[in-house]
Amino acid sequence: MIGATSAGQPSTGPRRLRAAMVGGGQGAFIGAVHRHAMALDGRFELVAGALSSQPDRALESGRALGLAAHRTHGSWQALLAHELCLPADERVELVVIVTPNHVHYEVAKAFAESGFHVVCDKPLVHTSAQAAELERIARERGIVFAVTYNYIGYPMVIQAREMVRAGQLGEIRRVVVEYHQGWLATRAESEGNKQADWRTDPARSGIAGAMGDIGSHAENLATTVTGLDIEAISADLHTFIPGRRLDDDASMLLRFSGGARGVLMCSQVATGCENDLRLRVYGSEGSISWRQESPNELEFLPREGPRQLLTRGSPWLAEASRRATRLPSGHPEAFIEAFANIYVAVADAIQADPAQRVAGAERGYADVSDGARGVRFIEAAVASSRSEQKWWPLRQ
Amino acid sequence: MIGATSAGQPSTGPRRLRAAMVGGGQGAFIGAVHRHAMALDGRFELVAGALSSQPDRALESGRALGLAAHRTHGSWQALLAHELCLPADERVELVVIVTPNHVHYEVAKAFAESGFHVVCDKPLVHTSAQAAELERIARERGIVFAVTYNYIGYPMVIQAREMVRAGQLGEIRRVVVEYHQGWLATRAESEGNKQADWRTDPARSGIAGAMGDIGSHAENLATTVTGLDIEAISADLHTFIPGRRLDDDASMLLRFSGGARGVLMCSQVATGCENDLRLRVYGSEGSISWRQESPNELEFLPREGPRQLLTRGSPWLAEASRRATRLPSGHPEAFIEAFANIYVAVADAIQADPAQRVAGAERGYADVSDGARGVRFIEAAVASSRSEQKWWPLRQ
Amino acid sequence: MIGATSAGQPSTGPRRLRAAMVGGGQGAFIGAVHRHAMALDGRFELVAGALSSQPDRALESGRALGLAAHRTHGSWQALLAHELCLPADERVELVVIVTPNHVHYEVAKAFAESGFHVVCDKPLVHTSAQAAELERIARERGIVFAVTYNYIGYPMVIQAREMVRAGQLGEIRRVVVEYHQGWLATRAESEGNKQADWRTDPARSGIAGAMGDIGSHAENLATTVTGLDIEAISADLHTFIPGRRLDDDASMLLRFSGGARGVLMCSQVATGCENDLRLRVYGSEGSISWRQESPNELEFLPREGPRQLLTRGSPWLAEASRRATRLPSGHPEAFIEAFANIYVAVADAIQADPAQRVAGAERGYADVSDGARGVRFIEAAVASSRSEQKWWPLRQ
Amino acid sequence: MIGATSAGQPSTGPRRLRAAMVGGGQGAFIGAVHRHAMALDGRFELVAGALSSQPDRALESGRALGLAAHRTHGSWQALLAHELCLPADERVELVVIVTPNHVHYEVAKAFAESGFHVVCDKPLVHTSAQAAELERIARERGIVFAVTYNYIGYPMVIQAREMVRAGQLGEIRRVVVEYHQGWLATRAESEGNKQADWRTDPARSGIAGAMGDIGSHAENLATTVTGLDIEAISADLHTFIPGRRLDDDASMLLRFSGGARGVLMCSQVATGCENDLRLRVYGSEGSISWRQESPNELEFLPREGPRQLLTRGSPWLAEASRRATRLPSGHPEAFIEAFANIYVAVADAIQADPAQRVAGAERGYADVSDGARGVRFIEAAVASSRSEQKWWPLRQ
Repeated sequence: MIGATSAGQPSTGPRRLRAAMVGGGQGAFIGAVHRHAMALDGRFELVAGALSSQPDRALESGRALGLAAHRTHGSWQALLAHELCLPADERVELVVIVTPNHVHYEVAKAFAESGFHVVCDKPLVHTSAQAAELERIARERGIVFAVTYNYIGYPMVIQAREMVRAGQLGEIRRVVVEYHQGWLATRAESEGNKQADWRTDPARSGIAGAMGDIGSHAENLATTVTGLDIEAISADLHTFIPGRRLDDDASMLLRFSGGARGVLMCSQVATGCENDLRLRVYGSEGSISWRQESPNELEFLPREGPRQLLTRGSPWLAEASRRATRLPSGHPEAFIEAFANIYVAVADAIQADPAQRVAGAERGYADVSDGARGVRFIEAAVASSRSEQKWWPLRQ
Repeated sequence: MIGATSAGQPSTGPRRLRAAMVGGGQGAFIGAVHRHAMALDGRFELVAGALSSQPDRALESGRALGLAAHRTHGSWQALLAHELCLPADERVELVVIVTPNHVHYEVAKAFAESGFHVVCDKPLVHTSAQAAELERIARERGIVFAVTYNYIGYPMVIQAREMVRAGQLGEIRRVVVEYHQGWLATRAESEGNKQADWRTDPARSGIAGAMGDIGSHAENLATTVTGLDIEAISADLHTFIPGRRLDDDASMLLRFSGGARGVLMCSQVATGCENDLRLRVYGSEGSISWRQESPNELEFLPREGPRQLLTRGSPWLAEASRRATRLPSGHPEAFIEAFANIYVAVADAIQADPAQRVAGAERGYADVSDGARGVRFIEAAVASSRSEQKWWPLRQ
Repeated sequence: MIGATSAGQPSTGPRRLRAAMVGGGQGAFIGAVHRHAMALDGRFELVAGALSSQPDRALESGRALGLAAHRTHGSWQALLAHELCLPADERVELVVIVTPNHVHYEVAKAFAESGFHVVCDKPLVHTSAQAAELERIARERGIVFAVTYNYIGYPMVIQAREMVRAGQLGEIRRVVVEYHQGWLATRAESEGNKQADWRTDPARSGIAGAMGDIGSHAENLATTVTGLDIEAISADLHTFIPGRRLDDDASMLLRFSGGARGVLMCSQVATGCENDLRLRVYGSEGSISWRQESPNELEFLPREGPRQLLTRGSPWLAEASRRATRLPSGHPEAFIEAFANIYVAVADAIQADPAQRVAGAERGYADVSDGARGVRFIEAAVASSRSEQKWWPLRQ
Repeated sequence: MIGATSAGQPSTGPRRLRAAMVGGGQGAFIGAVHRHAMALDGRFELVAGALSSQPDRALESGRALGLAAHRTHGSWQALLAHELCLPADERVELVVIVTPNHVHYEVAKAFAESGFHVVCDKPLVHTSAQAAELERIARERGIVFAVTYNYIGYPMVIQAREMVRAGQLGEIRRVVVEYHQGWLATRAESEGNKQADWRTDPARSGIAGAMGDIGSHAENLATTVTGLDIEAISADLHTFIPGRRLDDDASMLLRFSGGARGVLMCSQVATGCENDLRLRVYGSEGSISWRQESPNELEFLPREGPRQLLTRGSPWLAEASRRATRLPSGHPEAFIEAFANIYVAVADAIQADPAQRVAGAERGYADVSDGARGVRFIEAAVASSRSEQKWWPLRQ
């Protein structure tokens, strides 16, 4: 059936790591994605959980997932307490935090302080002070702490990053990153949509709506691929749906370290859009364009010569991109595989020599520092939007 | 991160079924795909295997996959013998056959006769007589026997089939199905490409090359979506690469039951193509177009009104299509998910009331009869190509 | 507004040639296209006409077009007679024949015998005997005789042809040409559609319907780009609409000189299709793909390296392609410009040294021999479809 | 060849209007485009010109275009003087101004004051004071004064505008308009590129570079389609190429009357881009997306139901869009046809009852007021970029 010779087959050798999940019970969305992603390559085994803040639901969800009864808990505190009682070779090594945002901090802090490795959904926490605290703990405890900016796990995003690093784009001049969704184009939070409910609630979602939920993905994608820092922004956040308490639409001008300029846009009221995340980077020697909804392709526009369509899995791609695939070119991979690449990178990090621990970006995942930068970005976006000052600086 | 409300979350309730794999050891390609597909939804657990025809490699591959040592065997005969000694509640329930084609028959026959459910890679076997024998055994033993024509597991292929069934295309007039690959555009079988080696060897691949390997996918895709039988063909198979022993390029005219006409093309010397499987169906009321390399989209051209781009996971799709997804629209799914859908359908079939067993197509997989039809199709293609007779009939 | 440096500006130097038109009066379609195409570059001036077979309509159409009254005629015979009375420096130099097919022969013959240059719409005539006669006359009178296979006038088709000639595709193996339209998906000829009326009438359209109307374009496109002769075909022509008297859907297998194989398809009942002409050529070193509905792009798939998207007007294109454009890349040209390129090529041919007259293909238009080949192709398609003989030879 | 029933055939009835051209001689680009556009539909006849500021070149260019010797002038002043001596029925009715920007004002003023209708390239003039003066003159003299914002002549842009007007998008929330070119990615003005030379020279181009040259197209496109005024902007103009004297890259945030927000981007250093003008408008009921490089398509994303691909010439389009085409759907039209639509609209305006003269936008062209708005926009963009004030208001 399949003829490619470069079939990437993930190593199946290493021992499976034991994982617990907090949040992600029945009716949740992102928890299931994390489980699919973990399952794909078999680097983690989910053995314990506190899958909901409602004890009944937590227990029922654990049963449905086939977790052992004694490792299914009604609260994350119970989960933590029980795990700490287990011998090291039974205890989970990783906790996966997929609750609504407002719960991230206390869970992450508690597990990190106890020395568990952490995978936490984004945005990391509500405030940059919390983020700095988690950075400190992670550093002191020497743990792996990943934040699931999953889009940087796509092989063609990795290819883009490698092309930038290799100088194929020359000096970067212009970055346009945009993320349009339409699912909040009506007041879905009043129509029984659970996702909409918490994501538009400042108490649970934080100070930003669309900017926190998807704008932060755009920020992470742009900075990861270009390797540039955003130095200043000029933002305009807006709420289109009457009664909504957080922004649902935003645009901002960007100024990067090194002189590049650009634009970041995000909207959740972009009617008819599904998950339209796109990145374009224009450099002096060439430009690239990538679109999440067609993730297997990366367009490359060299300064001279015809434009090129690079496709995932091709032998002429950068090695880091080729390694991040499971299937030959033409056999598309997609969202779950990209998400799973994050988990592979995390597993590699956990199983690497602790003495040689490197920044997450070097392994292909966003670490707690990247997550903290994302929180500072959200804070700056909100502040800039409220300000009459044209350029708002970002702390690095 | 994700805002859709219709997140399809595969049921996690049912008991995991125990599976063994024959073939698919280190260096093989398709075995890894089957394992990824099984892993994704957790409906099967791989617990035993005879992963190579070379005992050493078989054992080493089993270790690498984490199989228990006593359930890793150096031959499929040893695997079968051992499983038959186990109590029913330990014994595997399914055998997955991912060897080169020439081994399919004896393995499938032996396991089927012993009452194991079977998933076998395509094409099913070398001859229609063998296929008929397997059909007979499967029927008599009442087993589930699936052939992994995986492309029909794509949600938008399911959507296409449902639209045909619902009459949205009206009377079907024209079917164009094509499958172009370029990986055999040079004599790869002489360049150390293991896949190319056996796929161009009549002893292992059967009487057809490209026609058997990918033309049979095209046949299955076209007939599954349209629900029509191919009644007669006029085929032209050709070998472009000097020294190659099987066809590497083919085209044929098609005549369907009910009067539709069409074309089937396949080539493995289509330089630069990756895995370019496409289907177009033209009906009196509308037409559809689908392309495997952009699998989340289905184009629909109604007789009146603008063309439509249907996207996977949208609420206005047919229920069978919506059920076959894990992620909301805009979060692309791809090859592995489609493959996994076949496994979900097989698991459902195995766990369904045996008294109510239905044709695989009703559940979303190709069964042994579909596989047998595929073998007859390959035989007819070869015969037609050699004949001066314009139209060659297909036995149904 | 426009920044390209390579703006192709058609030479405006040469004297305008005087032209007459037969057919193309009010309500006709293709006549207007010819006039737009002639107008674009100013190489011809339309000064006389017999614009309809209905004298009243002919005269009224002439008035509407601003022709002088004494050069507007009620019949082509009157036009011819009058032109022959004029002094050479007033007489038209070219006759453009845009009547329904059945009138082509007598008009073309009469004007050609009188030494006028001819542009005739396709298909050239009803029978290969008629075509041979026109070939003979054109050769003997030394006239330029063009048949408006307009699609070969597209710059990216010219680019494709040049790439084949330059060996960039290597040995050509496979050719897939297809032309799908949907405008005859219902019985439009019974619904007052004048175009449908004559095109489905054997007396006016000839022995073939879709095959003559659009299949012949596909034949011309494939042979012009590849430079290969079609040696044998196996055709299946069909009529889907009850009561229709000519084929409305066809497919055929192709065998080319030099060993290439392929498929030609055409249909006018392909519901929802507009003017979906596509060509793919697969060679040992690379493949190309072109689609008329996106005519400014040509996809090139080299054997090694990423696929390329060549765009009209780019400096790295072949010189013949660059010459056939008026605008810089990114400023799209389309159908009329391609049609106008045919007229530019005809004007160049007329104004070239008669001693150095070359085949039309060398200048970028189809000449009477290409038109004759097209007629033989149509005859062979109909004969093959009626025959039980698998391969039907084409006379070259 | 062509089967559509709705072949749009431009009326050929009205008398041709006499036109003169100022600028556009040999080596110029845009002049040739204007001539192609005028030629296409035969509504204007070019009979006089002052085709270059260099008298020799002007005369030679006139000869090459076939203008009568006595109507070919070495300066626009000579042209004007001569025309004023001619009797009304010989005198040109329209002057077309296609010089570099800095010449627009004096030529337009002189001809307008003498009562000639004017077509002037964009941006109209260097200052809003000049623009206001031209507005005043045009109003007082009752002339038609068009500014060739040619992109609004595309049929699918007209369709977009009609859909907004008809409420199919609901309340407009978000507008993203962008125009990326790459031809100034190097210092082309130092490499002998004549276009680059004057367009980067403040003396000839005005106070803005990319913003004036292409950003103004983006402004016009966005406001024409949406019917909304831009009330305030926050702009960031930048020059990437060392030594260049005008901006070559810009982005701005937009606030529209009625509350819509958005982004406008333009760059001429976007390496590899050709003429990548795109518009997206997101409304409460639906969104649209259009791209100049694929101008025959308009994507429509309704709030409920599948996305639609509207194609030029389809019977279900708005009447104004259908009228602006010459060919049936599937037979692509492009840049020149869109440009020609402007000329058709101008001819209609000139030949309409002067008592019923309406705004250009009602007829499909940008008039002097639209041109003046464009100049104020450019001034605001430059001022905003230099200011530390976040929001810069636009005078309407």
